[in-house]
Amino acid sequence: MGIGEDALRAHERWKGKLETVPKMRITTRQDLALAYTPGVAEPCMAIAQNPARVYDYTIKQNTVAVVSDGSGVLGLGNIGAEAALPVMEGKCVLFKEFADVNAFPVCIRTQDAAEIVSVVKNIAPAFGGINLEDISAPRCFEIEEQLQDLGIPVFHDDQHGTAIVVLAALMNALNVVGKRMQDAVVAISGAGAAGTAVARALLGADGAAGAASATTSGSGSAATVLRGAGAPQERVRDVIVVDRKGILHPARDGMNAAKRQLARITNKHGKQGTLADAMKGADVLIGVSAPGIVSEVMVRSMNKGAIVFAMANPVPEIMPDLAQKAGAVVVGTGRSDFPNQINNVLAFPGVFRGALEAKAKRITAGMKLAAAHALAACVEKPTAERIVPSALDKGVALRVAEAVRKKAVEEGVVRK
Amino acid sequence: MGIGEDALRAHERWKGKLETVPKMRITTRQDLALAYTPGVAEPCMAIAQNPARVYDYTIKQNTVAVVSDGSGVLGLGNIGAEAALPVMEGKCVLFKEFADVNAFPVCIRTQDAAEIVSVVKNIAPAFGGINLEDISAPRCFEIEEQLQDLGIPVFHDDQHGTAIVVLAALMNALNVVGKRMQDAVVAISGAGAAGTAVARALLGADGAAGAASATTSGSGSAATVLRGAGAPQERVRDVIVVDRKGILHPARDGMNAAKRQLARITNKHGKQGTLADAMKGADVLIGVSAPGIVSEVMVRSMNKGAIVFAMANPVPEIMPDLAQKAGAVVVGTGRSDFPNQINNVLAFPGVFRGALEAKAKRITAGMKLAAAHALAACVEKPTAERIVPSALDKGVALRVAEAVRKKAVEEGVVRK
Repeated sequence: MGIGEDALRAHERWKGKLETVPKMRITTRQDLALAYTPGVAEPCMAIAQNPARVYDYTIKQNTVAVVSDGSGVLGLGNIGAEAALPVMEGKCVLFKEFADVNAFPVCIRTQDAAEIVSVVKNIAPAFGGINLEDISAPRCFEIEEQLQDLGIPVFHDDQHGTAIVVLAALMNALNVVGKRMQDAVVAISGAGAAGTAVARALLGADGAAGAASATTSGSGSAATVLRGAGAPQERVRDVIVVDRKGILHPARDGMNAAKRQLARITNKHGKQGTLADAMKGADVLIGVSAPGIVSEVMVRSMNKGAIVFAMANPVPEIMPDLAQKAGAVVVGTGRSDFPNQINNVLAFPGVFRGALEAKAKRITAGMKLAAAHALAACVEKPTAERIVPSALDKGVALRVAEAVRKKAVEEGVVRK
Repeated sequence: MGIGEDALRAHERWKGKLETVPKMRITTRQDLALAYTPGVAEPCMAIAQNPARVYDYTIKQNTVAVVSDGSGVLGLGNIGAEAALPVMEGKCVLFKEFADVNAFPVCIRTQDAAEIVSVVKNIAPAFGGINLEDISAPRCFEIEEQLQDLGIPVFHDDQHGTAIVVLAALMNALNVVGKRMQDAVVAISGAGAAGTAVARALLGADGAAGAASATTSGSGSAATVLRGAGAPQERVRDVIVVDRKGILHPARDGMNAAKRQLARITNKHGKQGTLADAMKGADVLIGVSAPGIVSEVMVRSMNKGAIVFAMANPVPEIMPDLAQKAGAVVVGTGRSDFPNQINNVLAFPGVFRGALEAKAKRITAGMKLAAAHALAACVEKPTAERIVPSALDKGVALRVAEAVRKKAVEEGVVRK
């Protein structure tokens, strides 16, 4: 695999992908006096007197922490904090490159959820937002939930970044096949961070409350959970979630709290069985699971005008040409070498940029939905080959940011 | 105070003094594939297999955390994590500007020593070194000590940065007045982080062991503590430390563990009394305390050829002209508008640069002493008006770094 060797050599050459660069030079006494002592005492005292001024005088206003414990990195699994660092640096690079947001990697040694929460709370003063990254399920739900009242946006990208881009892609894909959101039945392969967040988003059940009832109490009725931001026409008819052991349904044993909650709000007709059973008659397959686990036969069993997002990386659940041969009309993957790359970079830079600009205290379900709509609207005339913009399109983040900013202000979730 | 207003406006304009800047652009698929997925998986796996490789592929090799809880910031006191941020950003600016070391501010919410230790341990994976900053005594001793086995250099600048620069300045000042180190009696005004570290350094009692016995057990004989790196001719004859309540001596009540330990290793003749008593017959006064507390009468009571470092900021213990009128031959302050500015920026950038280059696992007493010698040697012919180089001299850090690097290798405290 040539790219791997090339990447290794590039990383050796870069010696770290980020630099922390001053905005001013220090060559004269006056420079030193302004940026450091004695002048720096003045902004310090101003902040001590009025803590909100930290946003006026410091990096906090435009700096995000990319936080990971390295427990669920890419397809590599639990490789730990140090080994996760190249990914987190890469994420920081994308923040800066796509949205001019400064970002710094915080790779955390412990994998204990409560301790991670405590570390993030303790380092929050210098940051305007927290991007949680590659933390494995179900701990990621609990960690994100417990950080929602930090006063700054906290967003687990594997969950919500994925959900936003999938939702946008699905809006455009349904448009291409001439179906309505509220008529669509969606099978999701994978019940980890991404699958769970996508399911919740498609059911308008996204938002902290959902995660809270799923993970902290383990109870909560579907009615209390189904209070996301989406109007009814922005929710699909049904979602059927499948993990390694088959379809999630309320009677299944041995599920964790997050899956139990998912089982309550999905699978209206109590289907049981395998992924093949879930896909029978479905309009959409969303794969956030494992390479090659979807067959042509399974795609053929879907409704006409099938949509297949096979996003396992680097090898999708089914290769695009096979999916198409089996009748899928729109196919997306996570890969840049096929059409319709469903990549989180389309969402997270703009989401944080917009949230920071709005001085948002959190990222709400409404802001995520606004991001999805803005992202979908970046493609003027969706076609089977183009349901999302290119991951390299630098205009996307600003459009997403503007939508997120507006929605935050509209919802009033901003600092005064 | 014009500089204060100017600094406030400058900070408002800068909106944070640091940016996190990628070393590469992301404009093509290949760029994305190398810096992020899928290529990034390769360095991740390499590190997972061999953790030492994190130094080859990531920012860790050249990135320092500037860690503070905001409990003892400049002369401002306990202003908290957010209000400390402008200072920590400034410190990061100096790291980059003077030694091309990347640095990022970590402002910690809690002021509980054990919790700070835990946070620093947890965020250490992305950092090659930890610069502790503006953490008040005596917690700073305990925190630094408990982090010495982290495997990366951990250095409390208020202690050791100050001690290195004072030691270098003193070497040159003694040279100017024609005295030897081993004959000098030194009065120190201030028994906080700086005063304690300076006292230990002047007695060759620096090093983790000293701090350990002072703070963790509260016991330890002078003999076990006096095992620093300095040769006898690099130690002064006696040090007398004075805090707000007077001279430290073993019989004094109500001292914390650090002061008790200091009382045991200083003040050979068991002097009691005030700062005025301590200064009587002393060769050197080192003030790291409060504005204006030293009078001309007190300076006149010192030995001939008196050396006065009055480093309280922004107003020194005694103004230089008054000290000179009272017979001081060499006078230094912390200020840039007088000769002999004794400023930590002369030490910390080079110390960390050298430690990082050496792949040092810690910063030893020997490395600090080497830094002091290198710094002193930056002034070829010391005079009363020039015992240290200018704080703006960009050549200093590299000379300090080289000395520190060499000493680390020589002592074998480096990663293989």
